[in-house]
Formats: sequence, C-alpha cells, structure tokens
Amino acid sequence: MPRRVFVVAAGSSRFGERWEAGQAELAKEAWQDAGFRGKIDSLFVSSMASGAFTEQEHLGPLVLSAIGSGSVPSVRLEAACASGGAAVRQAFLSVRSGEHDVVAVVGLEKMTDVPPDEASRILSQASLAEDEARTGATFPALYALMARRHMHEFGTTEEQLAAVSAKNHSNACLNDKAHFRRTVSVDDVMRSPPVSDPLKVLDCSPVSDGAAAIIIAEEGVARGLSENPAEILACEQASGPLGLCARTTICGIPAAASAAKLALEKSGAKLSGIDLAEVHDCFTIAEIMALEDVGFFPRGGAAKATERGETALSGSVPVNPSGGLKAKGHPVGATGVSQFAECFLQLSGRAGKRQVKGARTALTHNVGGSGATAVIGILSGEVGRK
Amino acid sequence: MPRRVFVVAAGSSRFGERWEAGQAELAKEAWQDAGFRGKIDSLFVSSMASGAFTEQEHLGPLVLSAIGSGSVPSVRLEAACASGGAAVRQAFLSVRSGEHDVVAVVGLEKMTDVPPDEASRILSQASLAEDEARTGATFPALYALMARRHMHEFGTTEEQLAAVSAKNHSNACLNDKAHFRRTVSVDDVMRSPPVSDPLKVLDCSPVSDGAAAIIIAEEGVARGLSENPAEILACEQASGPLGLCARTTICGIPAAASAAKLALEKSGAKLSGIDLAEVHDCFTIAEIMALEDVGFFPRGGAAKATERGETALSGSVPVNPSGGLKAKGHPVGATGVSQFAECFLQLSGRAGKRQVKGARTALTHNVGGSGATAVIGILSGEVGRK
Repeated sequence: MPRRVFVVAAGSSRFGERWEAGQAELAKEAWQDAGFRGKIDSLFVSSMASGAFTEQEHLGPLVLSAIGSGSVPSVRLEAACASGGAAVRQAFLSVRSGEHDVVAVVGLEKMTDVPPDEASRILSQASLAEDEARTGATFPALYALMARRHMHEFGTTEEQLAAVSAKNHSNACLNDKAHFRRTVSVDDVMRSPPVSDPLKVLDCSPVSDGAAAIIIAEEGVARGLSENPAEILACEQASGPLGLCARTTICGIPAAASAAKLALEKSGAKLSGIDLAEVHDCFTIAEIMALEDVGFFPRGGAAKATERGETALSGSVPVNPSGGLKAKGHPVGATGVSQFAECFLQLSGRAGKRQVKGARTALTHNVGGSGATAVIGILSGEVGRK
Repeated sequence: MPRRVFVVAAGSSRFGERWEAGQAELAKEAWQDAGFRGKIDSLFVSSMASGAFTEQEHLGPLVLSAIGSGSVPSVRLEAACASGGAAVRQAFLSVRSGEHDVVAVVGLEKMTDVPPDEASRILSQASLAEDEARTGATFPALYALMARRHMHEFGTTEEQLAAVSAKNHSNACLNDKAHFRRTVSVDDVMRSPPVSDPLKVLDCSPVSDGAAAIIIAEEGVARGLSENPAEILACEQASGPLGLCARTTICGIPAAASAAKLALEKSGAKLSGIDLAEVHDCFTIAEIMALEDVGFFPRGGAAKATERGETALSGSVPVNPSGGLKAKGHPVGATGVSQFAECFLQLSGRAGKRQVKGARTALTHNVGGSGATAVIGILSGEVGRK
C-alpha cells in the first residue's frame, strides 16, 4: 500500500529581475521563506538551462550546500518549463515508495544575466531544435500558431486572451513575491506591441529570476512537522511529440489532457470539487488551452468563461490566484514548484489577500515546451473543511 | 517490503566521434542494441549538457519518440558526469516502490559537434563556476591537483597512473563499442603530451559521442522478459561540496566512499565477493581514488595493485573490463548507464572476449564533477553461479 504524502512547508524567493542574487542566493531565499528547519533525506532540484544561463550545471550539490542540508542525494531534473512539476513528481514517488520520509524540491532559474535575445534562444532549445528553433520558430511563434488555430476553430478573440492577462495581473497585485505587481486592462493588452501575431507583449510571461521550494513528507512525519499539511493526492505526468508538427491537435495539449485524466482518476477528486487551479499560462492562449485540457470548460468554452469572470479570484474556479506565469513571473525551473507552493499556501489558509475562501482541493498544471511534457498535481487540505 | 528489481536488457551505441549521428539516432542505436521489444511504463534520460552541446534541451520526449515508446512519463536527470548513475537510481526506486513495473534508462551525450575548447568550457560547468571554472581550472587541472596530492601523500608515481591507462586500453580492444580499440603502453602514456601536470593526454578520457540503454523490471515481470536478468541489489547516492576547496580531502572522494558504504550495507554484499567493477576513470588518478574510496585497497594501495596487474581482466578484481571511460569513451550522460550495461553483460555471461569468468557480483562507481555527486550500484547475476 503506497504511503500518503504531504507538503509540510513551502516558500519562494521574490520573482523578478534579481541582478543582485545568484542561483545559490535565490535557492536560500526560497528555503528560508519556507521556514523549514528539519532534516531532509534527499533533494530534487529543477532547472531548465542553468548551464546556458549561468555557466553552472550540477546544481544538486550547489543548492544542497546553499540550504545547508549535508551530503544527502541531490539531483537535478529537467523537462523544459515542466522541470519543476517533474521534480515534484519524482520527490512525491520517492516518499510514497517508502524510500525517503522527508524530501525537498527546490526549483530555480536565473535568466536575466543574459541579454533578452539570448534568453529567447536558450528557451527555444525546449522545442524541437532541428525543425522548430533552427527555422526561427521561437516560443511566442509556436504559441501564436496555437492561438490562431484556436481562434479559427472556436471563435476565440484577442480580447478574450487579453482578459487572461488582466485577471492574472490583478491577482499578482496581491502577491508580494510577484514579478509584476500592477494591473493591466484588456485595453492595455490590446494596445501592447505585437510579438508574434496574435500574441502581444502583454500576452506573454516575462523572463524572470526566482526560486521556489517545497518540503514533502510521509503522513506520520508530516503531522509532526506541520499543523496544516496539504496532501498530494496525485501527481501524474505524460509525454507527447517534441515538435508541434507531430501532434494530433494544436488547439490543446494532449499530454496535459492525459495527465489530468490520470490524476483525477488516481486522486479520486472530481473537477467540480476543485477549488482553485494554478495553470501554466506562459502565454494567455496557454491558460485557455489548459482549462479545456483539464476539463474545467468544454473546448471553446474557457475563453468566454474567462471573459465572464468565472476564473477570477471571486469566480467559480479561481485560476492562477498567485498571478500565474504571466504576472507572478516565470523563472522556468521554479514554475512547477511554485505552483505547488501556492496551492500549499491556499490549502493551509495562509495565502493572505489572495486567499481563496474555503479552499480544500487544488490542481496544478505544468507544461514543458509547446506541450511535449505535462505534469498535473492534485492537492487536498484540511483547513478549508473546518 | 520493497520489490526486487532486475536489469532485463541493456545496449549501447558505438562510442566515438559520431559525426553522422544526432542524439535521437544514438539513442535509437543503443535501444536497438538492447533488443527490447516490450512496453515501458516510464523513461529516464540522462545527459549533462545537451543544450550547450546540441542546442536541444527537453530530451525526455525526444528520446521517447526515438525509441517508439508512446506517451509515458519521460524526464531528464542531470548530475554532471554522474547523470547516468543518478538516472538509474531514480528508475530503480520507481520500480522498487511499485510505481512502475518496467522502466527504461537512456543515457547519452553528443559532444563532438562543438570544437574541443568549447567542449572543455561546457564540461567545466560541472565544477564550481564562480571559484573554479572562471579562474581557468578545467577538469584536468582539478584532477591534477588531486593526483599531485595523492603522489605527495602516498608516493603514487606517474608510471602507476599510466598503468591504469594501459590496462583500460587493453580491455577496450575486446569491446567493439569502444572509442579507442588500440593498446597503449606505460611508455606511450609517459611520452604523451602534458595536459595539466602530472596528467598527460593518455591519462585523460576522451570527448565522445554515445548512448547506452538499460531496461529494468520488477521480479515477476523480469523473469518473463529475460532468461538471465541481473538483480540491482542496491543503488546509493551521496553528495559533497561542489568545489574542491571545501572538501575534507582531495586524495579521495568522500561522497563516493559514503555511497559505497551504504550500497554495501543495503545489498548485503561483501567487497571480497565483488567479481568486477566498472569505475569512473575520467582520469587515471580517478580510478586509483575510486578503488580506495570503495575499499578494494587501502589508501595508497590501489596504484601499486594496478601496477602488479591485480585489476587486470585476469587479476583478482577486474576493473573496467569494458575499457572504462579512458578507452571505451566518456559521453558523459551515457557513462553511468553504460556501466550498468557492462555489468549486465558480464553477469549474464554475454561479455564475449572480455568476459570475467564466473562473474556473479559487480559494482558500478559513477562520479559527477570533481566528486560532488557519487552513485554506487551493486548487481548480482545467476549465470556465474551455474
């Protein structure tokens, strides 16, 4: 019988342009924010491209020293922008299996020490290099193809995409770790410069520095470490072809739909019982596809629902209360871990001004590249039940 | 009760300068060599720096497509030159835990598409960038420091280091996948150009392209998939400070000693019962330290034992029958996986001309960077008992 696994602490560095902090400092900041002082049995680090961004690979031992955790096993996981989710999944499995009792996951990326065009080049290595990156198809271009097709199939409008950005900026104003703490209106988004038509600057998540940390433990240990741990009911992952050209659809991400289906089955949770979701809005269209892939709305329904406010903090399914990748920021290796950290805060009633009232069940949705990797987590807390 | 875990198949691409093959082709070649046609539940890929070497990160889905294994979870692990061992360890844990029944590990590195000085720069990202790589301390320089100190402490000679190289080249002549299939004498090594004194060209492992694959399964499934599976009795990992300057000794690698101690304890195996070892001879001094860290010889004893032929194929403890990193080649992400592949061949009696007779128990030793990560595996086969 697999053991039950709980998040017992979580923290985050401030996200943004952190020119004064290196990777070790960012990791330490997230670790201290988590406030965990116990021993860990193993460390999982997630980063997409620390070698290219900072000339430093082999982050496991570097982060282990930064958080002062001795000589336990440490390893880095990479699955492009889903590195964080993939690392949480391995950590989850290592505890569930009985191999470890307490493990830490630290996700990080230090992206702003290189010029923006170099950051774009590095990020494009998460797509199919031979057929996509080398032909000039950067990520905004790949997601623009998806957006254009989604608009063609379902009548999705640019204003509806802009509504995603406006909502997430609004949420980020309530998050003191967020990269952007200012509101933008739908008009602001519509008037922002084009990046890859129909996506504009304010449809895109930023290049950010940042780190996030969670500590997870098996049930018995967890109850001793935290008053309000949040259980990870499931953490499922699926893969798809690396190149967009080989997918069966570009109006959604099949790997995300598969992983969500599995996670819902394994967790026993129902979509109608999910109180909030942290989803991978690297571009506004990505949030729309995420909500449809997971099944919150039928195909073609998420954009309209967003426009109606259903995914706002006060809506029926609050999405990205943290501000999401769009406004909290997207230090790629940190993102998936940060989603779990936000869910932990929400489920333990510690999310402050952005607290989703009565939150008992939360979902995370983390995507790598244009969708070749997807990780879905489902968490449950007890505070919201009280 | 954790489940028993077995290697059921293993394969390798030819190692060397493989300018005609990309990463997907190398992975496919290793996969086909393994000859496994069943389904897998999950894929673990190891690579140190595919982004820097090939502009392609996100190798999980790329390799998954190359080996035709559908949409199961896939993730890349990185722990510098111990990436392969770290990936095998996670795969091992995922089967032992009951999460998966059959998983694959594919390790690869495509290193020769960049100029040699660029390869050296990329590899140095596995050391502490701020205090080592940026001051010009490449890996030959770091291992030269260790060699010099070892010579000072124990009277180890350059000729004894050269004997490691001569032995491993001799073994590689019997391995048709090896990068270098030619003998070198101790004199040849001594006369080869200096790289970082006292290390010469022929003390150093080469920059290689290559891939290795193993498939592991839980006991019941394994017996149906292979006539002679080899059990993984233990796979343990430990960490140390990333920078050499923070270590308690530079005459050995404390993380390797810790991991070996744990692996021996958990496996129940005794050193005297180990019939062969595949160890991380990135430089000749590294093999000497490996043998002392694991405990085959006392400190200062391995170099003399090597000179006496005790680690030769016909010796009391055959070390690196495959040719090792020195002569089989060192495509970094493949190396740790390749060690398990060699042990599987040896333990199932399929190692051909380099077969260690009656081999029943084998040990792998895989190190990342200058020793901040170490992974030790212990395997057991049944053929040698017959």
